[in-house]
Amino acid sequence: MTLSAAPLRLSTADADFEAQFAARLHWSAEQDDAIEQRVKAILADVRQRGDAAVLEYTARFDGLQADSMAALELSADELKAAFDGLPAEQRDALEQAAARIRRYHVWQKTQGGETATYRDADGTLLGQKVTPLDRVGIYVPGGKAAYPSSLLMNAIPAQVAGVAEIIMVVPTPVRGSVATGGDGGAGAATRGERNELVLAAAHVAGVTRAFTLGGAQAIGALAYGTATVPKVDKITGPGNAYVASAKKHVFGTVGIDMIAGPSEILVLADGSTRPDWVAMDLFSQAEHDELAQSILLCPDAAYIDAVQREIDRLLPGMPRAEIIAKSLNGRGALIHTRSMEEACAISNRIAPEHLEVSSTDPHRWEPLLKHAGAIFLGAYTSEALGDYCAGPNHVLPTSGTARFSGPLSVYDFQKRSSLIEVSQQGAQQLGRIASVLAHGEGLQAHAGAAEMRLVD
Amino acid sequence: MTLSAAPLRLSTADADFEAQFAARLHWSAEQDDAIEQRVKAILADVRQRGDAAVLEYTARFDGLQADSMAALELSADELKAAFDGLPAEQRDALEQAAARIRRYHVWQKTQGGETATYRDADGTLLGQKVTPLDRVGIYVPGGKAAYPSSLLMNAIPAQVAGVAEIIMVVPTPVRGSVATGGDGGAGAATRGERNELVLAAAHVAGVTRAFTLGGAQAIGALAYGTATVPKVDKITGPGNAYVASAKKHVFGTVGIDMIAGPSEILVLADGSTRPDWVAMDLFSQAEHDELAQSILLCPDAAYIDAVQREIDRLLPGMPRAEIIAKSLNGRGALIHTRSMEEACAISNRIAPEHLEVSSTDPHRWEPLLKHAGAIFLGAYTSEALGDYCAGPNHVLPTSGTARFSGPLSVYDFQKRSSLIEVSQQGAQQLGRIASVLAHGEGLQAHAGAAEMRLVD
Repeated sequence: MTLSAAPLRLSTADADFEAQFAARLHWSAEQDDAIEQRVKAILADVRQRGDAAVLEYTARFDGLQADSMAALELSADELKAAFDGLPAEQRDALEQAAARIRRYHVWQKTQGGETATYRDADGTLLGQKVTPLDRVGIYVPGGKAAYPSSLLMNAIPAQVAGVAEIIMVVPTPVRGSVATGGDGGAGAATRGERNELVLAAAHVAGVTRAFTLGGAQAIGALAYGTATVPKVDKITGPGNAYVASAKKHVFGTVGIDMIAGPSEILVLADGSTRPDWVAMDLFSQAEHDELAQSILLCPDAAYIDAVQREIDRLLPGMPRAEIIAKSLNGRGALIHTRSMEEACAISNRIAPEHLEVSSTDPHRWEPLLKHAGAIFLGAYTSEALGDYCAGPNHVLPTSGTARFSGPLSVYDFQKRSSLIEVSQQGAQQLGRIASVLAHGEGLQAHAGAAEMRLVD
Repeated sequence: MTLSAAPLRLSTADADFEAQFAARLHWSAEQDDAIEQRVKAILADVRQRGDAAVLEYTARFDGLQADSMAALELSADELKAAFDGLPAEQRDALEQAAARIRRYHVWQKTQGGETATYRDADGTLLGQKVTPLDRVGIYVPGGKAAYPSSLLMNAIPAQVAGVAEIIMVVPTPVRGSVATGGDGGAGAATRGERNELVLAAAHVAGVTRAFTLGGAQAIGALAYGTATVPKVDKITGPGNAYVASAKKHVFGTVGIDMIAGPSEILVLADGSTRPDWVAMDLFSQAEHDELAQSILLCPDAAYIDAVQREIDRLLPGMPRAEIIAKSLNGRGALIHTRSMEEACAISNRIAPEHLEVSSTDPHRWEPLLKHAGAIFLGAYTSEALGDYCAGPNHVLPTSGTARFSGPLSVYDFQKRSSLIEVSQQGAQQLGRIASVLAHGEGLQAHAGAAEMRLVD
């Protein structure tokens, strides 16, 4: 059977455009009640029985038998050995990527990530104190979606923020394991499949401790703490449906980053970029998984034809052609717009995770773009560069959540405390305002506290 | 019966301090399964049937009968009339508080709340674009906890961020209504109890539209949109257990701020502040509700005695004495520490919502304080001033969540998009790194997209 990939062709001029567009965009992370119930039970059990429960679930779901939690901890030496064992080219690439990611997040910290105060005219000191979280947990998926780059993107901002302890968990399932509460089951060794690049990345990023745990049980261990796994303040990192459900459940007990949906790219093209580059950029999203979404918006119909031809030409050579084809056929779209302005407006309705502005004049269009996780400007800025090493974070809001949230950042690993110092003089003016409003709300002790500080 | 309030006396020198301390701090927002199931059903119904469902639930829970949603909308004129109808003193206090809150949040926006970019050595442009959310919903509780100050604290940062549409919902239950899905039932009029100060605050803060809706049905209407209530991008503001559960449930479809627990104050006293001031500050937290927590940490036992005497003396004069007594007896604590340093360390373990440093030398202790929603420095800085008008936000993390989160802020109403522009030259170096890592992850289309941009 010959594979073919034909993303849905749409035109904004079509009468049924709105309906077709809505249908193609539709994706819903409906909570699966069965998963939710199982996750709640696992979390409650881990909370109550700690290590014993974690060991049991790890044996059951990941097929990984261990006598004690100590056997599930990866030592710093093991992480270093993984790094040392890589080809020089991979070691260099990891280190260079890490350096660039670090540099960006160090800059990011200067943009509001530091304590600042000012004094009001009446001498009142106001401001915000910015401090790092004490301890965070980073979930790293195992199995088919084990990405060392994701580890760098989670751990480095935490380190730049000044987090003292970074606890990593990564499932290492044994081949053939049930993996219902784990994360894939693509292991290849009886001891549990370890991804050397992931361990090496953990060494490069400088994680504090690492455990070969996954699934809801790992989230529970991090959120509640066990005798062995320290309780963290926040959990970040992507995972399967069990992990996502568990993160949502422990939200409030600890902080979490976001619940990620399928990955997306939107290419906004004026027709000036080589069509094979754009075709490959669409592939680079589609190859993630069948639910990934690749969309091209362009006012030039002939250019869209050219991109389709490049899709046809390049697809057979792709090792992940089958996934790419399923993704493009099922969720992809090539949309002909009346203008670049209209393309920008449609992009804003989608609020894509990744947005390439493939134009000779990207700065003309950028101001029109309101919602996106990351905006890649110009033909040379392929999303792939951003995924690995440009510097900004590749953990981005999906499924339209760029309407209200942004990339994982150094700010996710810090928190602010307001600072307020009112002088005796300042307390006179403020006290009168507070007193009136407190009485209005029926809170007389509030009013009393303000009034007691009045001099007359 | 004479009321008395005797917060638990503890000393860090006691053998059983740790156990008693842990028991007193313990508070758990265990999700109530019955509430959760009811909320899920309400949300699903609102999602499917829109306005019709919202009208039905409003009639059932708030006792408020309306023929159409239009009857549940408050016009700008009604909000203005509420403001105009207030005594001048209250109008002035609202406006002055709003001005101070606005000033602080305008300053806050300069601390990382604006677009910024830089160029790398290889000409790569990196940075973050900061844009406001398009539309937000603000939940304002009705009934016994109707606080106009909360409306200012939610709406003004949204406005400063540049949010175009601020949709407010506030339940106006009719006396004697069931209010299981609503929010209190303390109404006093047949048309539904409206709080004039809240409506006036909405006028001052400049909300765009306002609806007399509450409970899970209001959260559903905002999250999914109905024919009448516009779908928002984020929902902020406190509410009862139904509202909290509903917010948690729609998290991901929209952004939410935080799930608030009972309010808390921790006073760190060196013994130099008038004990009646400290007693009243403890009251000002305790008067919120029985679950509110007021804690004093002090190395001076005689001073703690003096504060207890002031508690005894002042309590009978407080209109909310009964709530204060229940809160202090059930959850309050006066803790004698070995030193101020130890007091700071204990404060960090609590991570209080409000932290008063009631000392002649607050700047000596502030650097030791790692986790708190807001830090009030010096004897004149009563929490009450911060609650109403100092400027910083009074929506703060509770129940120890200050370990990983901070005050509501202008940043909550903005989002960031990464900006990346790689030059042809930059694409050469970055492309090689990306190619190596992409091959290592088995993502050949990612590698291909990077490699195609290589010149040689």
